[in-house]
Amino acid sequence: MKFFHTADWHLGKLVQGVYMTEDQAYVLNQFVQAVEEEKPDAVIIAGDLYDRAVPPTEAVHLLDEVLERIVIELKTPVLAVAGNHDSPGRLHFGSSLMKSNGYHIVGNFSKEIEHVVLEDEHGKVHFHLVPYTDPSVVRTAFEDEEIKTHNDATRKIVEQIQSNSSSNERHVYIGHAFVTPFGEEEENTSDSERPLSIGGAEYVDAHHFSSFQYTALGHLHQAHQVLQENIRYSGSILKYSISEESHRKGFFIVEMDQEGEVTIEKRELKPRRDIRTVEAKMEELLEHPVNEDYVFVRLLDEAPVLSPMEKVRSVYPNAMHVERKNVISLVSGSDSDARTNRTKMSDVDLFRAFYKEIKGIDVTVETENLFKEVLDELLRKDNETTDAEKKEYVRN
Amino acid sequence: MKFFHTADWHLGKLVQGVYMTEDQAYVLNQFVQAVEEEKPDAVIIAGDLYDRAVPPTEAVHLLDEVLERIVIELKTPVLAVAGNHDSPGRLHFGSSLMKSNGYHIVGNFSKEIEHVVLEDEHGKVHFHLVPYTDPSVVRTAFEDEEIKTHNDATRKIVEQIQSNSSSNERHVYIGHAFVTPFGEEEENTSDSERPLSIGGAEYVDAHHFSSFQYTALGHLHQAHQVLQENIRYSGSILKYSISEESHRKGFFIVEMDQEGEVTIEKRELKPRRDIRTVEAKMEELLEHPVNEDYVFVRLLDEAPVLSPMEKVRSVYPNAMHVERKNVISLVSGSDSDARTNRTKMSDVDLFRAFYKEIKGIDVTVETENLFKEVLDELLRKDNETTDAEKKEYVRN
Repeated sequence: MKFFHTADWHLGKLVQGVYMTEDQAYVLNQFVQAVEEEKPDAVIIAGDLYDRAVPPTEAVHLLDEVLERIVIELKTPVLAVAGNHDSPGRLHFGSSLMKSNGYHIVGNFSKEIEHVVLEDEHGKVHFHLVPYTDPSVVRTAFEDEEIKTHNDATRKIVEQIQSNSSSNERHVYIGHAFVTPFGEEEENTSDSERPLSIGGAEYVDAHHFSSFQYTALGHLHQAHQVLQENIRYSGSILKYSISEESHRKGFFIVEMDQEGEVTIEKRELKPRRDIRTVEAKMEELLEHPVNEDYVFVRLLDEAPVLSPMEKVRSVYPNAMHVERKNVISLVSGSDSDARTNRTKMSDVDLFRAFYKEIKGIDVTVETENLFKEVLDELLRKDNETTDAEKKEYVRN
Repeated sequence: MKFFHTADWHLGKLVQGVYMTEDQAYVLNQFVQAVEEEKPDAVIIAGDLYDRAVPPTEAVHLLDEVLERIVIELKTPVLAVAGNHDSPGRLHFGSSLMKSNGYHIVGNFSKEIEHVVLEDEHGKVHFHLVPYTDPSVVRTAFEDEEIKTHNDATRKIVEQIQSNSSSNERHVYIGHAFVTPFGEEEENTSDSERPLSIGGAEYVDAHHFSSFQYTALGHLHQAHQVLQENIRYSGSILKYSISEESHRKGFFIVEMDQEGEVTIEKRELKPRRDIRTVEAKMEELLEHPVNEDYVFVRLLDEAPVLSPMEKVRSVYPNAMHVERKNVISLVSGSDSDARTNRTKMSDVDLFRAFYKEIKGIDVTVETENLFKEVLDELLRKDNETTDAEKKEYVRN
C-alpha cells in the first residue's frame, strides 16, 4: 500500500497582500505529476485545503481542477478532512455525491467516524478521517461532559475508532490538530522542550496515536515527526510566511508493508518563487541580477535610504518587505506595542529613540544637549498653552 | 420519458428579515416525496438554487441533503444550471466528480454546451444545460463581437446546440433567462402586452426555443408558459414576496412521448406558512384565531392604532408587515422618494400630508386654519433665529 500525505494547502491565501494562487497551482501541478508517476493507492490531505471559510472563486476553481485530475483522470482516491481554516459545512457539500467516485471529504464532525477501506495484496487498510473540530462539538456528539480540551476529544475519538476496529488489520489516522509528544503526566519534566504544550486546551498528546500504523497530520507548517517515526506532519506545500524561510516544503510518500511497517520518503516541491531574506547594503543589492522571488530585504546601510522599496523592486520586483537591520520596520509590521510604549517615554527618550531609528546609531551627548536647548526654547515661547497641550505639541 | 421541472429555490433567502430555510425544507420534503412516488427519469432545476453567491451554511446543508436524497437514495439524476443569483464558480465545484453519480450541475458557461443524454424505450432525449451568463462571457467564448444582449447570446447558443444535434432525436433546453413571447421585429406591435420586453438587453425571444421539445426555464417566479405550451417557467417553490401572493407555487411533471409531444401536470407545493394579505379593522383582527402565516396586515381603522405590530402579533405571531389602508407604511418599506418630495413641500402641505397619514382622512379647512395660526405665532415668537433655522425648527 502506497499513499501520499500532504496538508495545509491554504488555497486562497494572501501573503503580504499577494494572492498565492498561481504559486499554489505551480506546486500542485508537480504534486499531480508525482501522483501520475508514482501511482499511489491514495492521496491524503490532512486539512486546511482552503485558507478561509469562504475562499475566493479562483481557489475553488484550483481545488476543483486538482481534484478532477487526481480523482477522475488518474483514478486515485483522495481522503481529505477539514482543517481549522476550512468551513466544515461548505467543504462537506457533495461529500456523499463524490465519495463513490473516490473523493472522500469529511467537513462536519460526526461520532460515526468516517472510515475508508482500501485493499492491497496483504489485506485491508482502514483510513479514519477526523476533521478539525471544536471540543464542544465532540462533547455534544458523544454526550460526554468530561470532554473539555482537544486532547480529551481526541482520546474519545481514538477510543471510538478502536472499539469498532479489528486490531489485526492496518489503520491510518487522518487528523488536523496541534499534536505534541508530551503526555499530561509528563508535562513538567522538561522545561526546554515543551513550547508546544503551553496553552493546554489546544494541544493533543501524540501517545493517543501510538496504535495506528500511520498518523497523517495537518496544522503545523513544518514537516516533522512527533514522538514516533510514523506520526507526522507533512507541512504546508509552500512557505506562507518569512518565519518558514528555512522549511523544505513537500509531501511524504508512505509505503506500508503487510505488517503495517512504513517506509517514508520526503518529496520536495519546487516553488515558483521562493520566500527568503536578502541582507545587503543598498549599493550591493542594486548589483544583484533581477530575481522574481518574494524577498524580505534587510538593508545593512547605516544611513537612511530614500524610497527603499522602489529601489529594491528594480532588482526584486516581487519584494514583500524592506527594513533596516536592527531598526524598527520601515515599511510594514505591527508596531502597536512600540506605540504604547512611546506614550510613556519622556521627550528626551523619544528623541533618543527617533535618532536611533533614523540614523541607526546612538545619539551623542552633544547632539542630545542641543536638542534639549531647542526644546526648552520652544516650550518657553509657547507660554500660553497648558502643560498638556505643550506635551501634545512637542509630540506631534 | 418523465421529468420534473422546478427552479428558483433561492435557498438562503431572507424575506422581510426572516430566513426561509425551514419553509424551504418543508416544501422540498414534499418535492422529494413526489420524486419517490412518481419515479421521474430526471429532475431539472433551472437556476437560482441559492439566493446569493455565498449562501449561509444552512442553505448549503439543505441543498446537500436534498440532492443526497434525490440522487443517491432515489437514484434520480438531477440536471441543474446556475441562475443569476448563484455564484457560477462555487456552484460548479465538484461538477465533474458528481456527474457520474447523476448530479449534473453547470455553473460556469462554456461554449461546449453541457449535454446529458437519457434514454427511454423510444430512444434518446438530449438535455442541454445552459447556465445564466452575462452576454460578454458568451461573446468572448465564441469570439463573436456581434453578441451584445442576452437575446444575441441565446441565439448563438441555440445555433451551437442545433449544429451539434440530430433533429431526429428529442431535445430539452434548460436555461435561466428573461424570456418573452416577442421577437425583435414584433416589438412595436402591442403596447399593452410588452412589459417584459422593456429594457431591451435583458429579454430573450421565446422563438429561439421553438425547435426544442421542451424548454425548462427559471428566473420568473410565477409559473407560466411563454409563446408555446412547451416553453415554460416552473416558478419558485415558495412565495418570496407579497407581490407573489396570488401565485400557486409548485412544479411541473412533464411526460414526453416518442414524438416528443409533452403532457404537463402542475403539482402544487403546500407551504409551511403562507404569505398573504389580511385586511381588517384591528378590533376584528384580534378576534381571528391564532395563525402562523407570514401575513402582511392592512388595517382598515380610520383612527391611528397604537403599537399595531405588537397587537397584530398576538394573533399572527409571524406577521411581516403592518400598514393602514391608503396611508404610507407604518412599519416598513422604502420611503426615500417620499422623503425627497417632503423636502420640497411647504409647511402647510407637510401638515396636510402628516394629518392624512395619521388620521387616514383629509384635514378640514377649520383644522388647517388652526394649524396656520399656531405656526404663525410660533414663527413670530422665534424672531431671533434665521429663516433657515426656522424652517429646520418647524420641520423637526
